[in-house]
Amino acid sequence: MNTIKGCFTTYGFQPIETPSFENSDTLMGKYGEEGDRLIFKILNSGDYFKDVRKSLESTGMVIDGYYRFVNNLLRNRFELTDYNFEESSIARWVHGDENKEILVRFIKNNENTIRAYITATGTNNDEETIVSGIRSKLVNDFLNYLISDYILNIRTALPNISEKALRYDLTVPFARYVVQHQNDIVFPFKRYQMQPVWRADRPQKGRFREFYQCDADVVGSKSLWQEVELVQLYDAVFTQLGLKGTTIKMNNRKILSGIAEVIGASDKLIDFTVALDKLDKIGEEKVKEEMRFKGIDDAAIEKVQPLFEASGNASDKLSMLRGLLVTSEIGLEGIADLEFIVNSVDDLGLGSANLEIDVTLARGLNYYTGAIFEVAAPEGVKMGSIGGGGRYDDLTGIFGLKDVSGVGISFGLDRIYLVLEELGLFPDTVSAITQVLFLNFGEQEALYAMKAINQLRNQGISAELYPDAAKFKKQMTYADRRGIPFVVLAGDTEMAAGTYTLRNMGSGEQEQFDLKSLTTKAKS
Amino acid sequence: MNTIKGCFTTYGFQPIETPSFENSDTLMGKYGEEGDRLIFKILNSGDYFKDVRKSLESTGMVIDGYYRFVNNLLRNRFELTDYNFEESSIARWVHGDENKEILVRFIKNNENTIRAYITATGTNNDEETIVSGIRSKLVNDFLNYLISDYILNIRTALPNISEKALRYDLTVPFARYVVQHQNDIVFPFKRYQMQPVWRADRPQKGRFREFYQCDADVVGSKSLWQEVELVQLYDAVFTQLGLKGTTIKMNNRKILSGIAEVIGASDKLIDFTVALDKLDKIGEEKVKEEMRFKGIDDAAIEKVQPLFEASGNASDKLSMLRGLLVTSEIGLEGIADLEFIVNSVDDLGLGSANLEIDVTLARGLNYYTGAIFEVAAPEGVKMGSIGGGGRYDDLTGIFGLKDVSGVGISFGLDRIYLVLEELGLFPDTVSAITQVLFLNFGEQEALYAMKAINQLRNQGISAELYPDAAKFKKQMTYADRRGIPFVVLAGDTEMAAGTYTLRNMGSGEQEQFDLKSLTTKAKS
Repeated sequence: MNTIKGCFTTYGFQPIETPSFENSDTLMGKYGEEGDRLIFKILNSGDYFKDVRKSLESTGMVIDGYYRFVNNLLRNRFELTDYNFEESSIARWVHGDENKEILVRFIKNNENTIRAYITATGTNNDEETIVSGIRSKLVNDFLNYLISDYILNIRTALPNISEKALRYDLTVPFARYVVQHQNDIVFPFKRYQMQPVWRADRPQKGRFREFYQCDADVVGSKSLWQEVELVQLYDAVFTQLGLKGTTIKMNNRKILSGIAEVIGASDKLIDFTVALDKLDKIGEEKVKEEMRFKGIDDAAIEKVQPLFEASGNASDKLSMLRGLLVTSEIGLEGIADLEFIVNSVDDLGLGSANLEIDVTLARGLNYYTGAIFEVAAPEGVKMGSIGGGGRYDDLTGIFGLKDVSGVGISFGLDRIYLVLEELGLFPDTVSAITQVLFLNFGEQEALYAMKAINQLRNQGISAELYPDAAKFKKQMTYADRRGIPFVVLAGDTEMAAGTYTLRNMGSGEQEQFDLKSLTTKAKS
Repeated sequence: MNTIKGCFTTYGFQPIETPSFENSDTLMGKYGEEGDRLIFKILNSGDYFKDVRKSLESTGMVIDGYYRFVNNLLRNRFELTDYNFEESSIARWVHGDENKEILVRFIKNNENTIRAYITATGTNNDEETIVSGIRSKLVNDFLNYLISDYILNIRTALPNISEKALRYDLTVPFARYVVQHQNDIVFPFKRYQMQPVWRADRPQKGRFREFYQCDADVVGSKSLWQEVELVQLYDAVFTQLGLKGTTIKMNNRKILSGIAEVIGASDKLIDFTVALDKLDKIGEEKVKEEMRFKGIDDAAIEKVQPLFEASGNASDKLSMLRGLLVTSEIGLEGIADLEFIVNSVDDLGLGSANLEIDVTLARGLNYYTGAIFEVAAPEGVKMGSIGGGGRYDDLTGIFGLKDVSGVGISFGLDRIYLVLEELGLFPDTVSAITQVLFLNFGEQEALYAMKAINQLRNQGISAELYPDAAKFKKQMTYADRRGIPFVVLAGDTEMAAGTYTLRNMGSGEQEQFDLKSLTTKAKS
């Protein structure tokens, strides 16, 4: 992470951090239905169910009102045809304004059912039983109605128990940030952000859905130099990490739109690209089969035949595309963009990455409007893409700031970590923070050691004293388990001579130094 | 933050990070009642109110059962005295096992009320009305009962809607971490942690309750060298930050316990310390008055008279304390601890901080068991303590790992930031990340510029190209607003000569360099 930060800084990106919390409104609806479900919500403090409780608490009065209304109807059931189901007639059966509405609404909506139930009571001998039965039915209907209402209230209350949610990615908070600070930001604005995000995806044992994302974006400029820079930035980071042979794949949304024009079916573009992407795996015939199955006709497939034969270097592919998209204005624009980027990167040179045109690359098709990037790990490492990005013409539009073009890339930190680990590219010193451990042989010896430790630390060398005058073996085991490369022994002899014995834990070699040469030795 | 991290590393502390989420159980009850209220809780996904809904949905059947039970009682009210209120008799009125319990419980508990209501119906002429009224009353009682039950269910469901909470501080998660990884950790374990914490304290407009904490702890050793090191670490950090003249105040819990012994009132210790702490502000007499008011008698105050006259250097204060606490074993132990630390620090020397004994220091009295630290900003800066800490003998006990002694300090990052800002100690370069901006005069010129930018970046110098060939003034304004100290102009003339014109934005000076000397110049 420090390497990546160093590169960002050298490239002129400013670090920003946004709060972990965003308003739920800011996040909801931005990541699709599945995304909404995976957003972690923060519980409000306070009484979320006031309304629910209130309606529960007034139930007794409403039921009682309905009860008396039904009793009255039953008592006068022979004049039922004259009964006035008007609001004012109903309302007098219930006390309290807040309860009226629910009762009136129910009775008016159920006039026919109530009339039918009550009319049925006139024709039977065992009248008391019938009356009671009808009353049960009527009250029960009403209860069921009330219950649905409560459930509705609970459902309504649920969204109110949370107004804040945890950051789901860095892009939406960044867009919110840009819009909010648009008057303070100096555009073009180059920022990077490296912060955790949270997703409520099936948690695994002992591991919660929290992980770091790392994005670098430039907003407020349409210049293609940004794309050039981002390719270089990818290359710089991977080169500095020692990760050689990554492939930066590029495509352009405009080229994909051009292809859509040429095949005469903008709506089939995704199907088309998904199928084409399988060329390496399933071969030309099967890809064409899939295209036909998706409703792309033979004439269209015939037109883009050159795509199936795409090969050679970037220049070859660009020529092929130029031939194919000669009739598409937007397609040619995309080719020109890509050509500028590829040529500029070529002129400037890359450290260890390869830049490749990949016409099947369709990452975030609905989102990106220009360049599309994706980075593949070095050949032989089984790993999905370790980075990706692209240009979007309207990042901030959803928050009301129109026409701010941006281009950004992200680094898949976890995957990069795994690749580095697989290839054994982490330097040993990452785990062995402390360079030198001074053994502790007692109070005087410890003080003598601390004086040397002070010197080393002042020189920026990480050193520490074993805190207790424990057994020699215990102290050595500690050094060993911590992976500390050097140990210093300083007892009576050394103190008398004003020296320190330095032991190389790897080789077992020991040598005596005075304080000055110890410092020099430890620095090397 | 980088400075602090650098010091931690040099002192042999390992960075750890814990997840933002902890189980609510881990956090609740650790910070007192107020703390519990301030913990942010994460909403579970899923259906929290299944039980509530279930009981609502069965309401109709239960009410109906009760209805029929009451009807039956009313019909047979003259034989009411013989009626069997046994469970099996009641249960037959309701269908479905899940509904039985609630009905049986209510009826059995309300036997007397029900009997009384129904008996009352025998004495009136307008019987039908009375029967109906009694029935209303009985059903209404039952409804109210059900409603309380629903409310109880909702209350019960509420805690279940959240099982996770956001980190409230770094100490409790660290204790949890140590216990959880006790078999993998090499003790003594020196760790530092610098992560955000969240508190649901009145949020201010546009600002949420998220802030960084920064702790360094050593656990698993009782050695006083740790205390010595932590004093040095404070000093190293503040010295490197350029913050001269901080005061590291130290006390020891054992000395405070000794004082409690001497005044014969352990329970008055806090009152005593709080009062003594005001000595500077309100003077000896008022302090004594407050002590008397708090119930500390004159004899006790007389005994600790030397505390009021505490002055001079550490050695003087230690002598004074030794005289005062001569009868207290634990007090003398505390003095010996403090003396060792003060003498060792004295021998080793500090860069810019002052170490001071402060017998009124009682920070976290209930928590710390040995050393107590607090750091005051340099004199003249109005700011509370900018750091604090101490030794605790039982950090991990609450999580089941006993007898792990630890000592730790924390840095008040926000306050340190404010102090540095007030004293103007932030280097200019903190805001001006980019050292050199290359102006953009067109495609060819930009490519020429990018070649130089590449060189500078390879040397670790942060450089960038203005992305568009915008007007000169606009580009210069950008450099100015970003606070970029150098601008490079390279147009036709420079390209022809193979040079770059470097402009110092501060002085306005311009000079031409070839690529190599430009790099050298920019590095200096």
